[in-house]
Amino acid sequence: MRATVMRNRQLVVDDVPEPTPGSGQVLVKTLACGICGSDLHALRFADRMVDMSRRSGAEFSLDPRGDVIMGHEFCAEIVDYGPDTQRAHPIGTRVCSMPVVFGGFGVATVGYSNSYPGGYGERMVLNEMLLLPVPEDVPTDIAALTEPMAVGWHAVEKAGAIGDDVPLVLGCGPVGQAVIASLKIKGVGPILAADFSPRRRELAEKLGADIVIDPAQTSPWKRWEEVATPEGVDPRSLMTLMGIGPQQRPGLIFECVGVPGVLQQILEGAPRRARVVVVGVCMETDAVEPFFAINKELNLQFVLGYSPEEFAATLGHLAAGKINAAPLVTGKVGVDGIAAAFDALGQPEKHAKILAEPWRTGGL
Amino acid sequence: MRATVMRNRQLVVDDVPEPTPGSGQVLVKTLACGICGSDLHALRFADRMVDMSRRSGAEFSLDPRGDVIMGHEFCAEIVDYGPDTQRAHPIGTRVCSMPVVFGGFGVATVGYSNSYPGGYGERMVLNEMLLLPVPEDVPTDIAALTEPMAVGWHAVEKAGAIGDDVPLVLGCGPVGQAVIASLKIKGVGPILAADFSPRRRELAEKLGADIVIDPAQTSPWKRWEEVATPEGVDPRSLMTLMGIGPQQRPGLIFECVGVPGVLQQILEGAPRRARVVVVGVCMETDAVEPFFAINKELNLQFVLGYSPEEFAATLGHLAAGKINAAPLVTGKVGVDGIAAAFDALGQPEKHAKILAEPWRTGGL
Repeated sequence: MRATVMRNRQLVVDDVPEPTPGSGQVLVKTLACGICGSDLHALRFADRMVDMSRRSGAEFSLDPRGDVIMGHEFCAEIVDYGPDTQRAHPIGTRVCSMPVVFGGFGVATVGYSNSYPGGYGERMVLNEMLLLPVPEDVPTDIAALTEPMAVGWHAVEKAGAIGDDVPLVLGCGPVGQAVIASLKIKGVGPILAADFSPRRRELAEKLGADIVIDPAQTSPWKRWEEVATPEGVDPRSLMTLMGIGPQQRPGLIFECVGVPGVLQQILEGAPRRARVVVVGVCMETDAVEPFFAINKELNLQFVLGYSPEEFAATLGHLAAGKINAAPLVTGKVGVDGIAAAFDALGQPEKHAKILAEPWRTGGL
Repeated sequence: MRATVMRNRQLVVDDVPEPTPGSGQVLVKTLACGICGSDLHALRFADRMVDMSRRSGAEFSLDPRGDVIMGHEFCAEIVDYGPDTQRAHPIGTRVCSMPVVFGGFGVATVGYSNSYPGGYGERMVLNEMLLLPVPEDVPTDIAALTEPMAVGWHAVEKAGAIGDDVPLVLGCGPVGQAVIASLKIKGVGPILAADFSPRRRELAEKLGADIVIDPAQTSPWKRWEEVATPEGVDPRSLMTLMGIGPQQRPGLIFECVGVPGVLQQILEGAPRRARVVVVGVCMETDAVEPFFAINKELNLQFVLGYSPEEFAATLGHLAAGKINAAPLVTGKVGVDGIAAAFDALGQPEKHAKILAEPWRTGGL
């Protein structure tokens, strides 16, 4: 089959062996597969990613020197069943799945494996028990957004109870957009969202942000304070600090940037006692001054991925039209357009999510 | 009155003006005042402390160029009442108070103020409404430990519900000891505690640690895993990671060291989904690799100080004999012995808490 392969830190189109479904597995045709920021990371930092995952005790048995077919945000179609399967869904059923595949040998991440192809190839094998059928009226492009949207839903679920909190989303790439959409579903707000890119701020409004901020013009922290502080309350007064009288609403900050320096900006800027959910994946060493976090008693919840329940709930949200996801898809490419799409995603003014359709050819 | 004064980054004994109680205030005689690690910090890093507090939005109006009489862990005796006071307690009553004093001018921290003397002087002024009388059968030395013990109680309270968690306390200086004592009161355990110093490990056992660890001999993380993992459970197996079957008990880590590098060691070593309570006050820039925290979905709760309720509860615990606090006091000095005591506290094999008795003279 045709696939875009990561080989020697390059993306190349090649013919690769057809995958064969094993016990409990199904063969699927990739209908659409989103290109994720993590894939851009992996292409640049594969060695470091593998090394750090191992050091942090994760099961991540990728050899970056071998071929990898990336792609983990997919909607696919059942082509054939392997042995020991229930065959619960007819051939041709569209499905989503968490990008995890397992068998007698152990477990692998679809899209970050040397053994299993991801969604940048024409076909994949998945586990039957993880398949979620896509309702008929849900477009394939929308179903393919289940995985990235689940990341936002998980982040918001991990924040725990959101009462009177005023959320502030820093960074409006796909991860930030997923967080905004999830906050909207939760019915909390007003939702503040900050990004330097006008296009991303516009998208954030479409996804549910109530107030968007250009950090080049306005401090997100100042704007947050204006929104969160009731008329006549001085958050720095002794009375307020002692908890007497009306209070500033609590801060709930989502870090969706994932580059060094952002964490320290949050420690300096966040309001007292804020909760910070770190969704952005910073792969480098970062410098922080813990004293700021101590002095303000900040809480930092680092998050990754989602649970099976959260993944299924997200497909449900998309199917029910609870997420205005269509504007996120800004481009589609065939199998030979994936490498160029990786480059294009570096331009926030042009693209949010690009979907690969490896069953066809064609560029942006 | 006589006092040990911080002047030009030195501690000097001098005669200073007698403080005068204002409206709502009382004059007290300092009976005993603990020397705190923060005071050692302040002597070395006063400028930085003030600068960072201001940058983080705290009210901390200390001028390090002026005289400061430090000391905020005190038990005192009422000497006289100022105007507009209720005089609820007779002259001679022993009292504790949070180290906060306020009046028409604003609020100050007792022990970190240019206007108000702290407990390294013979007398102080305090606010009547913050006084807590010390029960007659509670020794003065024990009552003076209310403030440092309240820091531990607050840290444990801030951790939230402690279910099946296995706590690990890193660092067994006075802050770590306060955390251990507070965990013991909560009835959770086994409590693991790690410190390079044999003397501090011995103290930790007296305060309530069930298992003490010398990190030079044994990895605290390995020891934690042995204790927290039920027979036959592999915390890295797919079943366990998917939440199926018996699980490892959750990790609750207390950072009570407060020097650069410890945070990164925790991010690398802590078990998946651990909660980390950062009680140690690191005043320097620190380097971390956030990817570890992300990959393990760690939660970091930074804490500082205590509430009035937590402070009062701690005096209650000490009075009820719930904390075996006596072994913590390893030395007592008069007003002219405070500077030498600062130096002595650098040796963990010799000292835990040294109490100043500024009404007398004498060294260690």
